[in-house]
Amino acid sequence: MTDNRLLDDDKKRKNISITGVAPNEQEENIINSFNKHLHFTLVKDRNSATNRDFFQALAHTVRDHLAGRWIRTYQHYYSRQAKGICYLSLEFYIGRSLTNTMINLGIKNSCDAAIARMGLEMEELQSMEEDAGLGNGGLGRLAACFLDSMATLGLAAYGYGIRYDYGIFTQKIVDGWQVEEPDEWLRFGNPWEVARPEYVRKVQYYGNVEQTKEGSKWVNTQTILAVPYDTPVPGYENNVVNVARLWSAKAPDCFNFKIFNDGAYLDAVIDRNIAENISMVLYPNDNNFEGKELRLKQEYFLVSSSLQDMIRRYKANKPANLICKKMVMTDFPDKIAIQLNDTHPALAIPELMRLLMDEEGLTWEMAWNITFRTCSYTNHTLLPEALERWPVSLMQRLLPRHLQIIYLINHYFLEEVKAKYPNNIQNIKRLSLVEEEPVKQINMAHLAIVGSHAVNGVSKIHSHLLKTETFKYFFELFPERFQNKTNGITPRRWLLLSNPELAEVITYQIGDNWIKNLEDLRKLVNYFTLKKM
Amino acid sequence: MTDNRLLDDDKKRKNISITGVAPNEQEENIINSFNKHLHFTLVKDRNSATNRDFFQALAHTVRDHLAGRWIRTYQHYYSRQAKGICYLSLEFYIGRSLTNTMINLGIKNSCDAAIARMGLEMEELQSMEEDAGLGNGGLGRLAACFLDSMATLGLAAYGYGIRYDYGIFTQKIVDGWQVEEPDEWLRFGNPWEVARPEYVRKVQYYGNVEQTKEGSKWVNTQTILAVPYDTPVPGYENNVVNVARLWSAKAPDCFNFKIFNDGAYLDAVIDRNIAENISMVLYPNDNNFEGKELRLKQEYFLVSSSLQDMIRRYKANKPANLICKKMVMTDFPDKIAIQLNDTHPALAIPELMRLLMDEEGLTWEMAWNITFRTCSYTNHTLLPEALERWPVSLMQRLLPRHLQIIYLINHYFLEEVKAKYPNNIQNIKRLSLVEEEPVKQINMAHLAIVGSHAVNGVSKIHSHLLKTETFKYFFELFPERFQNKTNGITPRRWLLLSNPELAEVITYQIGDNWIKNLEDLRKLVNYFTLKKM
Repeated sequence: MTDNRLLDDDKKRKNISITGVAPNEQEENIINSFNKHLHFTLVKDRNSATNRDFFQALAHTVRDHLAGRWIRTYQHYYSRQAKGICYLSLEFYIGRSLTNTMINLGIKNSCDAAIARMGLEMEELQSMEEDAGLGNGGLGRLAACFLDSMATLGLAAYGYGIRYDYGIFTQKIVDGWQVEEPDEWLRFGNPWEVARPEYVRKVQYYGNVEQTKEGSKWVNTQTILAVPYDTPVPGYENNVVNVARLWSAKAPDCFNFKIFNDGAYLDAVIDRNIAENISMVLYPNDNNFEGKELRLKQEYFLVSSSLQDMIRRYKANKPANLICKKMVMTDFPDKIAIQLNDTHPALAIPELMRLLMDEEGLTWEMAWNITFRTCSYTNHTLLPEALERWPVSLMQRLLPRHLQIIYLINHYFLEEVKAKYPNNIQNIKRLSLVEEEPVKQINMAHLAIVGSHAVNGVSKIHSHLLKTETFKYFFELFPERFQNKTNGITPRRWLLLSNPELAEVITYQIGDNWIKNLEDLRKLVNYFTLKKM
Repeated sequence: MTDNRLLDDDKKRKNISITGVAPNEQEENIINSFNKHLHFTLVKDRNSATNRDFFQALAHTVRDHLAGRWIRTYQHYYSRQAKGICYLSLEFYIGRSLTNTMINLGIKNSCDAAIARMGLEMEELQSMEEDAGLGNGGLGRLAACFLDSMATLGLAAYGYGIRYDYGIFTQKIVDGWQVEEPDEWLRFGNPWEVARPEYVRKVQYYGNVEQTKEGSKWVNTQTILAVPYDTPVPGYENNVVNVARLWSAKAPDCFNFKIFNDGAYLDAVIDRNIAENISMVLYPNDNNFEGKELRLKQEYFLVSSSLQDMIRRYKANKPANLICKKMVMTDFPDKIAIQLNDTHPALAIPELMRLLMDEEGLTWEMAWNITFRTCSYTNHTLLPEALERWPVSLMQRLLPRHLQIIYLINHYFLEEVKAKYPNNIQNIKRLSLVEEEPVKQINMAHLAIVGSHAVNGVSKIHSHLLKTETFKYFFELFPERFQNKTNGITPRRWLLLSNPELAEVITYQIGDNWIKNLEDLRKLVNYFTLKKM
């Protein structure tokens, strides 16, 4: 191809354009778009369509209203080189998205009218939506609420999680006993997600560490692919659409294959599932610690794929001629903030160290400076038995390079402690990342505190007790790191959506600014006889 | 709800309509539709789109042209109560669909022009499509060619097969040896399929047979769900779109779950895969027999779900007041023809017997009359060692009711043989469905011949040898059943698509009628010096 031809092609590409194809929110347009999706997307007519088809047609219609905002939001973040807030969480209890999306886009009324005009029942369609139950309770719903609120505030926030094939189990009570059924929420397809196989990342496990002249090398690993699925997170009536990027585990093609032999080939294809089990099921626990290898694999899967993605994004935002490794990475903490939702993603600390040193060629000091300035940690529990700990033997086998890095973090940290409290052996033992009893294990909360510049509890009393009880000795050492961030919920889903009548009464009295700024609810004291808060 | 309200709703439903939403085939419309899909379906702009996104946008654009024809084809078959030709095959070697679909719809030229106008390369987009390699070779490609030709002939044909997650392996040569890699063709999504979870069927395995007053009952079975995925099969420029219905195995929710216990719950969720292995991988063999339990499970999975689907469709075509079991089923063979592609789906014979007797309450004689008149069998091999045989011990465990039925079919059949050839013990042994050596097993070719009214080979010499060698004794018994149907290929894919220059030369000389009627190629003898055929 000549340069001329290239220029020509570039000009022709202008024909690939998103302008002029976005429908507006007229009732007629919604009916038209609904019919198009029923016809073209679902290949149904009104005689053969089920309520699930009608739900899907509506969901796709609503999704069409997200697409342009979604694309433009990322064009905007990219052009502004906005700082990305990366919320890492093993759980996102998203729930249903249809109604929330209609509300946040401001098209709920026209959709209601359109559905009624077609003789359908909105509530029946809503009830066809599967619940994205990718969480157990508060910790996971907090993550989902944060995403909604950050989108509404216009922050360049990214949720990073796992796309579990099976969410929180469906509970049945049989003869007075709980019986669980698997929550196969993806069975009928998920209209809200977009697969992004072009951003697949490789995650390594097992293997061993070799010492070379260029430093440590993690070799002979087993590779698993992490395929991202993006779920839109619309802000409330502000044209912002952020994203939750959820990773799904895939075995690579070359996984475990041998020279031809029918039986071995068939068995090997079926065995690939073992690799893909990583993203299969949400652990049905978030308030007590269970030390299972699969769980540790999940945690590292999330952390490694997400951090690689952040570094890719960080570099993509740099002009090509500036990508000169050691120089440029120092502003990483100005472009990326990582929030660890509990210790589940605490492996982000040694993983970021590993990526910066082993992949990007930075020194320990530079890598540590970047890691520490990038990470923050939210604690969810005061109960010592619920704090995560991983046996050294397991980490040695599954993540040998990370264990090495954790040991080194601990070494430098305890040097600091010794310098500050000479002759206090007791303090060393209390603060160490490595516990010796009952078996040798890593305390992930200690790792998270040492590797983060900010640590918070989720209520006033909780954060107080963290400082005075659970992490007393850490607080003495790093008082400036400890903060409180009281858990909140998004008023869009939990008031406007779930109690429209109350929302109306409130809006009648004080206007609708409370929907974006909950502090406004204080104005209600003027209208009701309430004890002063 | 009052009747009035119901009428109202019915009237309102007229708003759900497919008229006026089908785009035509103008170049501008194709660009517009392409842009819409890039934007709304793939949520990409031209800067972030990859060639795979461009392929998907084009595939969805082409698919939109199928939708209306697809819906109307089935409305037409339904209103005419057309006889359905059900082609049962363990393999459908479909290959890529994009170009073939554009050609058959007559929109190839406008798509080419549209893609060029956007500065893209059609060949690059075509190369992004995954190959639907759900077959090993001739047997599977024959099935796909038949579907194309039947659609072009306007026959109400239905392909029934399995939606393997992994098709025929990808071959690599390493150091002179073949190395297989799994063919994960669904990895990036399949724009040509539509999931139809509303037509899910239950397939039973294992269990035991109880004799009750109402007859035999198959009980204590393990249930697997069969979820259909429909793939459109467009005819050549005739507005017909038939369907290949491919089944995917799913564990039911209640699969293997016990009272609450974290570990058991997690293990059980992961174990569901064992059930879902049934549709995971195509056996990499079609010309020699390998007696593996998973293969027998696949065969029964295809047969049971497809037959249930045919009976559902047959009943749906009857006016509700006529569904009086024993009366109506007798015209089943006038409404449904089943073609068995090799013996792989030969279990259709005992399964149809079982469904008609155990589920529909028919007598043996009525059921046998219907089964025999419905089924036909295509043989693909003369090699006795390649003929399928299943050990009685395996069938007893996996399909006990079917073994019982096969024994009874054999009993009645051998009575017939004895009546015709009294005192010929040798003939009984040769013709029996049950072989005693080396282990007791069922000869599936014998079952297929006995249960079918037509048997064909796939070339003149092959069919001749079937009559004179392989099935000599059956031919003596049932000479009227044996036929020949020489294998053909669809001239659309294998000439028009794969050699457009040659197709053009031919069309220049004899017109384009050969595309639908290959016999027309004989006219070429007038233009070239050829030996008379």
